[in-house]
Amino acid sequence: MAITLNHEPHVEELARRTATFVREVVVPEEEHHADALAADGERLRLQLQEAARQAGVFAPHVPARYGGHGLDMRSRAVVFEEAGWSLYGPLALNIAAPDEANMHLLDAIATVDQKERYLRPLAAGQVRSCFAMTEPSPGAGSDPSALATRATKVSGGWRIDGHKWFTTGADGAAFAICMARTSGEPGDRDGATMFLVDADNPGIRVGRHLDTIDQSFVGGHCEVVFDGCVVPDEAVLGEVGAGYRYAQVRLGPGRLSHCMRWLGIARRAHSIALGYAAHRRLFGSRLGDLGMAQGMIADSEIDISAARALIMQGCWDLDTNGPWKQSTSIAKTFTAEAVWRVVDRSMQICGGLGMSGDVPLSRFLREVRPFRIYDGPSEVHRWSIALSALRRANSDGATPA
Amino acid sequence: MAITLNHEPHVEELARRTATFVREVVVPEEEHHADALAADGERLRLQLQEAARQAGVFAPHVPARYGGHGLDMRSRAVVFEEAGWSLYGPLALNIAAPDEANMHLLDAIATVDQKERYLRPLAAGQVRSCFAMTEPSPGAGSDPSALATRATKVSGGWRIDGHKWFTTGADGAAFAICMARTSGEPGDRDGATMFLVDADNPGIRVGRHLDTIDQSFVGGHCEVVFDGCVVPDEAVLGEVGAGYRYAQVRLGPGRLSHCMRWLGIARRAHSIALGYAAHRRLFGSRLGDLGMAQGMIADSEIDISAARALIMQGCWDLDTNGPWKQSTSIAKTFTAEAVWRVVDRSMQICGGLGMSGDVPLSRFLREVRPFRIYDGPSEVHRWSIALSALRRANSDGATPA
Amino acid sequence: MAITLNHEPHVEELARRTATFVREVVVPEEEHHADALAADGERLRLQLQEAARQAGVFAPHVPARYGGHGLDMRSRAVVFEEAGWSLYGPLALNIAAPDEANMHLLDAIATVDQKERYLRPLAAGQVRSCFAMTEPSPGAGSDPSALATRATKVSGGWRIDGHKWFTTGADGAAFAICMARTSGEPGDRDGATMFLVDADNPGIRVGRHLDTIDQSFVGGHCEVVFDGCVVPDEAVLGEVGAGYRYAQVRLGPGRLSHCMRWLGIARRAHSIALGYAAHRRLFGSRLGDLGMAQGMIADSEIDISAARALIMQGCWDLDTNGPWKQSTSIAKTFTAEAVWRVVDRSMQICGGLGMSGDVPLSRFLREVRPFRIYDGPSEVHRWSIALSALRRANSDGATPA
Amino acid sequence: MAITLNHEPHVEELARRTATFVREVVVPEEEHHADALAADGERLRLQLQEAARQAGVFAPHVPARYGGHGLDMRSRAVVFEEAGWSLYGPLALNIAAPDEANMHLLDAIATVDQKERYLRPLAAGQVRSCFAMTEPSPGAGSDPSALATRATKVSGGWRIDGHKWFTTGADGAAFAICMARTSGEPGDRDGATMFLVDADNPGIRVGRHLDTIDQSFVGGHCEVVFDGCVVPDEAVLGEVGAGYRYAQVRLGPGRLSHCMRWLGIARRAHSIALGYAAHRRLFGSRLGDLGMAQGMIADSEIDISAARALIMQGCWDLDTNGPWKQSTSIAKTFTAEAVWRVVDRSMQICGGLGMSGDVPLSRFLREVRPFRIYDGPSEVHRWSIALSALRRANSDGATPA
Repeated sequence: MAITLNHEPHVEELARRTATFVREVVVPEEEHHADALAADGERLRLQLQEAARQAGVFAPHVPARYGGHGLDMRSRAVVFEEAGWSLYGPLALNIAAPDEANMHLLDAIATVDQKERYLRPLAAGQVRSCFAMTEPSPGAGSDPSALATRATKVSGGWRIDGHKWFTTGADGAAFAICMARTSGEPGDRDGATMFLVDADNPGIRVGRHLDTIDQSFVGGHCEVVFDGCVVPDEAVLGEVGAGYRYAQVRLGPGRLSHCMRWLGIARRAHSIALGYAAHRRLFGSRLGDLGMAQGMIADSEIDISAARALIMQGCWDLDTNGPWKQSTSIAKTFTAEAVWRVVDRSMQICGGLGMSGDVPLSRFLREVRPFRIYDGPSEVHRWSIALSALRRANSDGATPA
Repeated sequence: MAITLNHEPHVEELARRTATFVREVVVPEEEHHADALAADGERLRLQLQEAARQAGVFAPHVPARYGGHGLDMRSRAVVFEEAGWSLYGPLALNIAAPDEANMHLLDAIATVDQKERYLRPLAAGQVRSCFAMTEPSPGAGSDPSALATRATKVSGGWRIDGHKWFTTGADGAAFAICMARTSGEPGDRDGATMFLVDADNPGIRVGRHLDTIDQSFVGGHCEVVFDGCVVPDEAVLGEVGAGYRYAQVRLGPGRLSHCMRWLGIARRAHSIALGYAAHRRLFGSRLGDLGMAQGMIADSEIDISAARALIMQGCWDLDTNGPWKQSTSIAKTFTAEAVWRVVDRSMQICGGLGMSGDVPLSRFLREVRPFRIYDGPSEVHRWSIALSALRRANSDGATPA
Repeated sequence: MAITLNHEPHVEELARRTATFVREVVVPEEEHHADALAADGERLRLQLQEAARQAGVFAPHVPARYGGHGLDMRSRAVVFEEAGWSLYGPLALNIAAPDEANMHLLDAIATVDQKERYLRPLAAGQVRSCFAMTEPSPGAGSDPSALATRATKVSGGWRIDGHKWFTTGADGAAFAICMARTSGEPGDRDGATMFLVDADNPGIRVGRHLDTIDQSFVGGHCEVVFDGCVVPDEAVLGEVGAGYRYAQVRLGPGRLSHCMRWLGIARRAHSIALGYAAHRRLFGSRLGDLGMAQGMIADSEIDISAARALIMQGCWDLDTNGPWKQSTSIAKTFTAEAVWRVVDRSMQICGGLGMSGDVPLSRFLREVRPFRIYDGPSEVHRWSIALSALRRANSDGATPA
Repeated sequence: MAITLNHEPHVEELARRTATFVREVVVPEEEHHADALAADGERLRLQLQEAARQAGVFAPHVPARYGGHGLDMRSRAVVFEEAGWSLYGPLALNIAAPDEANMHLLDAIATVDQKERYLRPLAAGQVRSCFAMTEPSPGAGSDPSALATRATKVSGGWRIDGHKWFTTGADGAAFAICMARTSGEPGDRDGATMFLVDADNPGIRVGRHLDTIDQSFVGGHCEVVFDGCVVPDEAVLGEVGAGYRYAQVRLGPGRLSHCMRWLGIARRAHSIALGYAAHRRLFGSRLGDLGMAQGMIADSEIDISAARALIMQGCWDLDTNGPWKQSTSIAKTFTAEAVWRVVDRSMQICGGLGMSGDVPLSRFLREVRPFRIYDGPSEVHRWSIALSALRRANSDGATPA
């Protein structure tokens, strides 16, 4: 079958409907929720998700048996990008982080019972979830092997103790997927296990919201303390000791999903700049007829096209070859930086207006900044990409990139 | 006299005292005033300025006859940079925008009476001021010739009508310096005049605060409406019709002052990143021993050194040759972009911590972003720099940069 | 049909054979032909093309009826890239510029007789050709509308007068495709016509070789003078007055072909750097374990992947939608700059060795530099990309990139 | 003494005369020596140096007692930059690498006898010299501690054995300063000693010229083999074991001299681009009126200004504080990259012409490329700059850059 870059008609149709839904239903809600998301985010979520169900665009990524559209990664790419046109579009479709990646993980490795108990209500938007992996210094972060939270075997289950932060969505989540060390020491590259922990477990305590530069995640980025948190054996997700492997199962698609969503915001920002450049007059010209503005516009077009193409390559690899592909690191690294450049350029094109709250560009800038850190800093991805390349060079000097 | 790059001892001493004052007195106030500056900024200003007087570091730029240290531009560079270590350092020393540049302008062109009435209390920190030039599209902005606000001659004075925005510090200012067109049409490159307008003039109305990405200017960035605003002939600042020329008198030093202050923030951000990199351990190393982090650290060192050197060149030119020098455009363009890069890199080095409110880096990022727009977008400066270079090429093909 | 990114098996097989052929047969010839290409290029061409025929990899792009493999653009992408591994790989396969694009043009618009006379021997490698469009200042260049060469109607044909330069391959070409103005004045955006001119026409004179930074094109980059050059009516290629349209027919695929070939060189350069980084030891480490080297390696991996993905998007558009697509401009602009970066980084990684002739990197740097100018300077492509984007913004403010 | 950025009148006068001399006498020689420098370089050197003596601009850096102008580093900056306007300007003034840095080194550490024998004729332009430090992998290069050439004590002197490459100017040099290990093992950070070796020593053999991308150094970049090369005790330069320290004495000023000279070439390239942009017309405009060209022009102006300012800072530090200053690394790293960007942009502005030999831009590009490697790769300087910054952070968390 020759190379094909067209989406199937039903996917294009879903993408179109998503685009319309986001523009007509979600965008108008933005101005009412600029500052106070943490407070009333849950109400907004329920309202938008109900609207998405009505519009037939809810849960594009979820298998049909759990009420979704069952899209593969390639098809998600175009739909998620359309959802990303608004910061709240992913929330409306139930494809926001961290829930979307948690659904993916649960579908891949949870038991039947775990799926009924955790995946089904999550996929339906009845509850939210969080993923408790990152820890304050000197714990797990850019270097996951530094994992310091421990799970100790007790009779009939495990006792978890440790301190997490940047646990996105923790405030209000119904459950956490907690990564804890069941063997070895911080610095060891294995020995981690995943646990499902209900929010009403008395051993879990959601702490302060970190006052991050981004502010659009419902439930915030929180500190979470596991303090003598006892869970039963059935709370183990997958196999004991396989946590780092599962983290890759989650992170590969998860980082591409991030790319898709943020690419939507980049397009939105670029569109605002284009609209301004097409009409604003100065120095006797249309702004869009001035060469330096054209240079910035073209660079954003190039960035958007390249990011989209790299995302699709990553999706193809995941769909056909499974996880652990270098292409997802490449797509994530490029897209995180490209999205940042596009939003920054769009602000610059809009001049003073771009600095003001009269357009959402500065909000977007704040939201996309952490993407170069979250899901692996660009430097860690570059390190990983380089090591892959060097291994290839060692095994076969003649085989190129 | 051979080239000398050392400051005179009394200037170095003042810089040292300023550095100590800012670290010991101003920085501790930062955490109490992160979000609510607009509200309680005036109280903070009075408190810090009193402390600065006590410490003998108040008003380094003001002539001695108005109570200041009378530093020239070169000497200001080192003191302002030290003040810039905190967002509120310039406020404390009474060298924050727009007051600092307004003092400079008044000292250069105001009459004796105007100086007593406006400059003296401003220099003493008794009042604040604003500079009302920028207008919403399609008015004066990147292109000052688009000036649309008009001043019409009436008996004994002028009537000003027009709509300004991005009037920094307008809320609470005792007076405005207003740029208005006294002849010609928007698009003409002359015909502007400056007026001194008291805040209690019934014809001036301070409107909403623009919700800008930066939030540290006391009095905000406001819309200001002049509506049948009548001022007496004595309110004319300098000569009728010379407004664009005076704008350069103000902007040349003003943009260098911005550079000095923001360079201080860049150094602060870099210092936070260095402190983190010097101690944070991951992947079995100290962060500061990882090559990619070292590359970012070195780039910030280079950016800071180059910005400082270009600022000094601009100061030298202003001190010895007067305004309208290309070197101030070069210094401003480079510094605005260098400062942005330094803060962004510092965030990246600090990883998740850098995205959080536990360090002020994301706050700094927001504050420095508009510097690539305020006081002339980088693109307008580049246009101006290129035209100067091309004129030089035309007049003498053999004379290089 | 869902998105597919795998090539068909017979294309992958041809690509593999091409890769082997280039490594085993073409690369060993490189060292004998580094400096003297212009002199003995024709002998090298005949030798390598015969070898390519033997290896079954000759003329992948030519329709089967002319003896080729008949690949579409998408399939060419992978084969041309493999051919590009050596500067002389495209020559061997008869897919070097300008012949390859001339074949494409002739196949698209020539008459049956013209195809037999010009395309058939060209496709078979019996002759070479050139494309005479670019003129010295103030003629056609970045701005094709400046075309100054004129063709005047005479009885039974046309008389062409004008001065071309950068006519690649002119020295030794059997014929030229000459772009001349048949109506209008320089600056008009139409009025051009293409002519087939035999090299033995007494009215054509090939002048000096420009001493360009690149030196691998057989036949050089020459000045060509048309001086009372009379051709018959049958020499008109396509329709009179349609020259600018045909130029796009030629340039769209032509610029993608350039991208494919140069991507091969970028991969080769990167491979040399990887081999060096994988083994060279300094500062007690392997070079490839130093972070700054890893950063450069990863950036090259990203650049190569993004270029390849954008090229494929352009190919898909040409294969399914025909010429005049913005995606070819995006691919060309990005690839020309990415290839440059990759070669430059590879030199930097190799240190002193990279500056020396002991590896071919500095040769590659010289060869790829003009790609940011040839086939449209990056700035002209950016201008075109920006105008497309602005038109889209005007016609539908809500439709994004 | 307050900060002063004006040169003293006699320095400005010498710079002016140098500028005139280079434009009127040296530049006209360029076209006759583009390709064949290695062959007839010595003749060109003697001819130009005689002319420089006549013009009173010879040897600006040499102490008066050796016949020079005795300029300090700050004063050299402006004169060397003017000399750098032509690739052969430094040759004419006897300030080309490696001789210029060797003179500096000899003046600083040689004995009286050594100065008479080696420095005096070198300063007078009677002979040339070379500096034999760099070795092929795995020897001394980016990492000087890898030094593998050994000097063994023999009766009355030393026997040197080792293999050097990139020994600039070796072919035709009257003597070499050779760096050899007198104790320790490759990897040790001390144990090196410098030796003065006459070219007629039977134990020294100048091998092949490396075919480097740059081609303007008289005497080329050569391999040099020391094979049982016996020298007397008096051949030791400075103290035994102090070689690495002396290397810094040489390299600090040496790298700044490189910066000054290459800045001259950058200005020359920029001037060519400006001249073209000021007159070339396309798309109905003057090239210099197109925004993207203006952006490139302005960026080159900024790069040139910033490089010059950083060079001066480094000079000031060397003149007043002695060697081992971080500021020379900062100046070298920035300037090497800035010069590259300026030349590359200048080529891009000139379009096809810039790729051709009709202007010397592509020649300049080739000459400046290695500057990012020679005298320490940018990455090694960044590593050094970062370590300095981190030490500062450790010793005093509060003291910033």
